[in-house]
Amino acid sequence: MKLDRECIEFLLDRWPVARLATSGADGRPHLIPIVFARDGEQIFSPVDAKPKSGRELTRVRNLRSRPLVSLIIDQYDPDWRRLWWLRVDGEARVIEPALPETSPEVARAFDLLRGKYPQYEHTSVVAGSPQLIAIRATAMRSWCASGDAVPRSLPR
Amino acid sequence: MKLDRECIEFLLDRWPVARLATSGADGRPHLIPIVFARDGEQIFSPVDAKPKSGRELTRVRNLRSRPLVSLIIDQYDPDWRRLWWLRVDGEARVIEPALPETSPEVARAFDLLRGKYPQYEHTSVVAGSPQLIAIRATAMRSWCASGDAVPRSLPR
Repeated sequence: MKLDRECIEFLLDRWPVARLATSGADGRPHLIPIVFARDGEQIFSPVDAKPKSGRELTRVRNLRSRPLVSLIIDQYDPDWRRLWWLRVDGEARVIEPALPETSPEVARAFDLLRGKYPQYEHTSVVAGSPQLIAIRATAMRSWCASGDAVPRSLPR
Repeated sequence: MKLDRECIEFLLDRWPVARLATSGADGRPHLIPIVFARDGEQIFSPVDAKPKSGRELTRVRNLRSRPLVSLIIDQYDPDWRRLWWLRVDGEARVIEPALPETSPEVARAFDLLRGKYPQYEHTSVVAGSPQLIAIRATAMRSWCASGDAVPRSLPR
């Protein structure tokens, strides 16, 4: 079964976490959990001020050589009839410097991220060399194990 | 910060869900949530009888052309001081036919999967053309936002 359109919109607009896959120049996949905000056809994910290793992040290095990404939103449930996922395949670009004052697109992304995540009252949306990943969806696919699997509320 | 060894062992042995990334022959990343069981240095994930599309699964097709995988275990928390993740990069092979009677390795993987997931009392561990993905870790990396971020109990 597939998730219905209303459910997909809910997940893209409200779900707090996704996992992002990129591929290195050698084809090695790389995975990381991300926060994100959606603006119409685009999904924005910031390289924010949550603690990081300090080097250029693998996701950013990968995107410079190969802009293809896959992103998945899902939630585990011990009742396997309630399992579901939504996958977005897309192309990504790295926006830098990602400063709200330099572009209306970035300003809008910051507004959406701050609106979705109250945590950004205490954490900077971007840090160090300010970067934002912008993903344009090229394909979307969903699955749910049954009609009971529709996500109705946010985790916690 | 990194997760400590005890915590990593707990996650590899007990956490019920991971997300698996593979890459296609064209380098496009692909992502899917998986269940898994760990046996020493290997992680097994079955192509089980949860409903599927019927065609050869993308994860399996990808692994035939490129055996590199990345797997992430994490849990979102609105308190970002409690965020953590564990990533396993590895090489995977597709075991088929994955029937317990044909190999001690598969028999052991089935025992571990059935021990970890009581759901397999009602769902077959493998279905259709029986396949099991075996992942050998080549690198492991973890991150946690703070000392409060250590996962102490399973989701739900």
